[in-house]
Amino acid sequence: MTHVGVLGATGAVGQRLIQLLDPHPEFEIACLTASDDSAGRSYRDAAKWRIETPIPDDVADLDVRETDPAAIPDDIDLLFSSLPSSVGERVEPDLCEAGYVVSSNSSNARMADDVPLTIPELNHDHLDLLKVQRDERGWDGALVKNPNCSTITAVPTLAALDTFGLETAHVATLQAVSGGGYSGVTSMEIIDNVLPHIGGEEEKIETESRKLLGNFDGAELDHHDADVAASCNRVPTLDGHLENVWAETSEAITAEDAATAMREAPSLDLHSSPDQFIEVFEEPDRPQPRLDRMVGDGMGVAAGGLRETSNGVQYNCLAHNTLRGAAGASVLNGELLVEQGWV
Amino acid sequence: MTHVGVLGATGAVGQRLIQLLDPHPEFEIACLTASDDSAGRSYRDAAKWRIETPIPDDVADLDVRETDPAAIPDDIDLLFSSLPSSVGERVEPDLCEAGYVVSSNSSNARMADDVPLTIPELNHDHLDLLKVQRDERGWDGALVKNPNCSTITAVPTLAALDTFGLETAHVATLQAVSGGGYSGVTSMEIIDNVLPHIGGEEEKIETESRKLLGNFDGAELDHHDADVAASCNRVPTLDGHLENVWAETSEAITAEDAATAMREAPSLDLHSSPDQFIEVFEEPDRPQPRLDRMVGDGMGVAAGGLRETSNGVQYNCLAHNTLRGAAGASVLNGELLVEQGWV
Amino acid sequence: MTHVGVLGATGAVGQRLIQLLDPHPEFEIACLTASDDSAGRSYRDAAKWRIETPIPDDVADLDVRETDPAAIPDDIDLLFSSLPSSVGERVEPDLCEAGYVVSSNSSNARMADDVPLTIPELNHDHLDLLKVQRDERGWDGALVKNPNCSTITAVPTLAALDTFGLETAHVATLQAVSGGGYSGVTSMEIIDNVLPHIGGEEEKIETESRKLLGNFDGAELDHHDADVAASCNRVPTLDGHLENVWAETSEAITAEDAATAMREAPSLDLHSSPDQFIEVFEEPDRPQPRLDRMVGDGMGVAAGGLRETSNGVQYNCLAHNTLRGAAGASVLNGELLVEQGWV
Amino acid sequence: MTHVGVLGATGAVGQRLIQLLDPHPEFEIACLTASDDSAGRSYRDAAKWRIETPIPDDVADLDVRETDPAAIPDDIDLLFSSLPSSVGERVEPDLCEAGYVVSSNSSNARMADDVPLTIPELNHDHLDLLKVQRDERGWDGALVKNPNCSTITAVPTLAALDTFGLETAHVATLQAVSGGGYSGVTSMEIIDNVLPHIGGEEEKIETESRKLLGNFDGAELDHHDADVAASCNRVPTLDGHLENVWAETSEAITAEDAATAMREAPSLDLHSSPDQFIEVFEEPDRPQPRLDRMVGDGMGVAAGGLRETSNGVQYNCLAHNTLRGAAGASVLNGELLVEQGWV
Repeated sequence: MTHVGVLGATGAVGQRLIQLLDPHPEFEIACLTASDDSAGRSYRDAAKWRIETPIPDDVADLDVRETDPAAIPDDIDLLFSSLPSSVGERVEPDLCEAGYVVSSNSSNARMADDVPLTIPELNHDHLDLLKVQRDERGWDGALVKNPNCSTITAVPTLAALDTFGLETAHVATLQAVSGGGYSGVTSMEIIDNVLPHIGGEEEKIETESRKLLGNFDGAELDHHDADVAASCNRVPTLDGHLENVWAETSEAITAEDAATAMREAPSLDLHSSPDQFIEVFEEPDRPQPRLDRMVGDGMGVAAGGLRETSNGVQYNCLAHNTLRGAAGASVLNGELLVEQGWV
Repeated sequence: MTHVGVLGATGAVGQRLIQLLDPHPEFEIACLTASDDSAGRSYRDAAKWRIETPIPDDVADLDVRETDPAAIPDDIDLLFSSLPSSVGERVEPDLCEAGYVVSSNSSNARMADDVPLTIPELNHDHLDLLKVQRDERGWDGALVKNPNCSTITAVPTLAALDTFGLETAHVATLQAVSGGGYSGVTSMEIIDNVLPHIGGEEEKIETESRKLLGNFDGAELDHHDADVAASCNRVPTLDGHLENVWAETSEAITAEDAATAMREAPSLDLHSSPDQFIEVFEEPDRPQPRLDRMVGDGMGVAAGGLRETSNGVQYNCLAHNTLRGAAGASVLNGELLVEQGWV
Repeated sequence: MTHVGVLGATGAVGQRLIQLLDPHPEFEIACLTASDDSAGRSYRDAAKWRIETPIPDDVADLDVRETDPAAIPDDIDLLFSSLPSSVGERVEPDLCEAGYVVSSNSSNARMADDVPLTIPELNHDHLDLLKVQRDERGWDGALVKNPNCSTITAVPTLAALDTFGLETAHVATLQAVSGGGYSGVTSMEIIDNVLPHIGGEEEKIETESRKLLGNFDGAELDHHDADVAASCNRVPTLDGHLENVWAETSEAITAEDAATAMREAPSLDLHSSPDQFIEVFEEPDRPQPRLDRMVGDGMGVAAGGLRETSNGVQYNCLAHNTLRGAAGASVLNGELLVEQGWV
Repeated sequence: MTHVGVLGATGAVGQRLIQLLDPHPEFEIACLTASDDSAGRSYRDAAKWRIETPIPDDVADLDVRETDPAAIPDDIDLLFSSLPSSVGERVEPDLCEAGYVVSSNSSNARMADDVPLTIPELNHDHLDLLKVQRDERGWDGALVKNPNCSTITAVPTLAALDTFGLETAHVATLQAVSGGGYSGVTSMEIIDNVLPHIGGEEEKIETESRKLLGNFDGAELDHHDADVAASCNRVPTLDGHLENVWAETSEAITAEDAATAMREAPSLDLHSSPDQFIEVFEEPDRPQPRLDRMVGDGMGVAAGGLRETSNGVQYNCLAHNTLRGAAGASVLNGELLVEQGWV
């Protein structure tokens, strides 16, 4: 049993982390941190629990600690971080310096040259970038990141198509309000409305995708040279980011080829990996956020609407943004860290 | 005063037509038709009026007629058609044969070689295709079509960019439920959900765009050769189609160039034309359906979020789908027909 | 294993019935019926499956039969009916005459003197009304009804308060769209809106409540004489009817008394009965439809917001309208019929 | 032309006040105040304008001042206050002391014995309570309040029924999210959900109603002795509070009597008063928030669904919560203050 801590445990992603980690067969929650005004209170008091399943009793009774290396017990083996990026930027390096291994969902440092950005089923080999990281930074700990929720939704399908030579991708997102955090999107903004802009989101998709699809030769990570363009929208759905994609490939590709490549994208044996990594629907009106966000218990990626275009294919894809796209992504990276012996 | 009739007057677009035509200074509603089970009843009884403004009293008292040439009075100068396409396909040619001029929103015959498909501010010169139509069909009447609502939203902006040589357009739509008609989208389908497919819609955008942007030399209409690819989604908004567009042009173009071209797209002096055809927002999170669908009294097109890409620009555009995109489009075509002497 | 059939299997409640019956340890689905245009097709083809969990494979392959006694196999022991009431009115008596036992969710005959209307935890003793029914009608079969979904939500709490002498109840409902069936409420009706009227619903609550709370002496059922007044609204939620209740009692009652009476309302040992029949929340803003509709796996009733008034208490209650309020209610009645030896 | 100021001008109600006051024929906006961090900036900069109509240019250029008597110019004749109640409690008395007449929407001091709480069409005679106020407090200025938005919706109908001797009222509200202010209700709270609790709201309805319906004899205001009980819900609508009411009267009353009494409730000649104070719908499914919130340009009250009960009537009523229920209510009180010579 690996003793784990959750940094930023009271937030929306922090609550999802607890929901996933509490029943997890390999992990035991032994430490929770939050902002200073929560520190010292029980988790039950500090967190306004907003998840449909009840707050786990044993976690509810834990005391919330400050998000500070000095406050983390020594016997913690692995930290999951859902800190605001401004806090993560400051605290995560200190924690790694102090010897902790951190699996982080925060957006800081995702694009740093020596920080692995991983979706285990896709690029688990990038994890060896941690050797470079330890060499360069002199850390006993380690920092691994998962991508942004909207990136995670599309890149598995793009990776499957890259066997045909991915050249460009246009990605239009229809993102759920939970991606903005509990209070990020007001009801007056979104009822009978769409917000056609999410600050910083388009750039994340455009840059993280190329890092994820890149090649790591053991020393350096070459980003993929595909041209990825994103346009991001917030829509009135609770969970599940739906994305419309046009992919152009250097080799000719049919819709059937694309479906096969997606269906054959391998999954892993990790606890949180879905049996089927990418589920491809035949019905043209699927996947839909409400009906399909729980494919693979919320850890699968769904695709559908495949159609050939003049030099590639177009399709839709969907993933649960706070499970596969955030908390689940961090947990999965944690499982990979354990399996590969970094913890 | 032109005496007009409304075909399919009880439906969602039919009601909008009546809302627009009743106070119209040039038109007087003198005839309403609907399906056989409505015929013979007063409009008040036959229509379940669902528009926020009250049903006009004088229209409410009109008797609904059958949708049949024999039932249309002779003194009607112009017919507005919002018939289901299967009915339009059957009835509209008979009406034109019988001498009526028809401005139609129905999707049938939009792509016919001798039927003008017009957005007056954009391609009013295409209306002269009616000469070819009368020659070929021997009609005394005439049939003019407006495009599909999702097409109308994007094409004005694409036309503005065509001064830089439009080569490709990728269009992802976020369409309002009113586009599906009053009962077209159930609440169980769309609450907390997105439908990533609207039957036939993508093809309409892809083909109608090229016809609208095409060149008419007085004898034949050459469709534009740009490659237009569309992906259509239904989202939980009431009115207003929002669209994400990536446009590639043969000449280099900046976001500023694109904004200027859009702002300078000329409007017309027709009664229903907006003062400003395309309104370009500077704020990155505009236009939004609820806030901006009424630009130009619902007859304008809004654009925003302009950003340069590797070989073109990306942006968002928005129009009110049942005003600029349907009923208002037909009324505007009717005004053009009158101005150009076809009525 | 009891062989069961589902009448009206393709509708919204029919699909929920299949979702509940397929994994049920006591029942085996052996027969499905639907309207004539579905008859003869496989269930997979005939039903447009709209439930988040996948269609069960073995059920999907069953052939759909006509809803007619002649089409039901002899070895069916129990029929669950979710027929439209106009069909139920015609077919259910024929089926009972033919010897079938029918647990029905249809609204026809609910108020008939010799038809038990039961919520097992509440008035399972009313089931003996079947003796009267068989005597009077000469049936070998039997017909039992569950109440309307909006009635089921409030009556368990009213029954708990009746120990203090229920005199009047005012009930305002905020009902989910699924209660109207899959296509019953259009998106244009309900986005950014409330419908303050549901045809026939208020009367159902007012009359069914008094029958449910009534006293059966073995021969005749006396309806309760409390004055129940209802006002029904449709709101933009998917599942879960929330109701505001003011109850006046002949004996003085505190909020604490009421909470205790509700918490102590006994459940049953039937498979689908929840461990806790009525769950009472302390937080004033609970229960909420989205967070709490799945209490007791969707078979519990939630209450909260208890507050004393001048001569009684006010509170809110909530139940899942297609589980506890419809399909689950019929299944539970089926379990009671088996347990009491009527099947 | 009366020179007016708006206190708390950047908030949701403040923006509505500006929308109403800018084109107002009797008032000219000459002063805007907001919190300290907005003071000193132009209104355009300080306010995040969120209303569908554009920000008025002349108002946009005004400098925002501190909410402090010293910062208000002397030539301001009338102040409209939409301050948070904690600020209003502190600042409003100082302003009245300094000689300003304040028409306030803030909830502080509404129930004070010498502060008139007025809906002009209903109880304009209560305004003479200002004589008592000036006597007791020694103010040169004056403070008048309008009720809470949910109170304003129901009380006009209750007042109409009071001719039959109102004894009790049960009021269940279905309130729009705009009532919580721009950020008051998050999207994650309300999509596919209802919040069955709004802090303090029920008590406001219960107490303010009795003050509004009370009798002022020139010296003292006797509150009405009707028993008013409220249950408040937040639903996913943008604007328009819908309320279900059961009213019991001492005299027998039919639905027709009630409709007539409501229709005959007199309006006033004030600029913002609607022609018809209470509009009564015959259709049982009206009024609906989206269709009917703009009756009387948003200043009317709509009623419908009238039905007799054992000792009274039940019905639904609706008013626009930020127009008739807040900003418009304050403006109307301002018009009354001018007409009656208090300004």
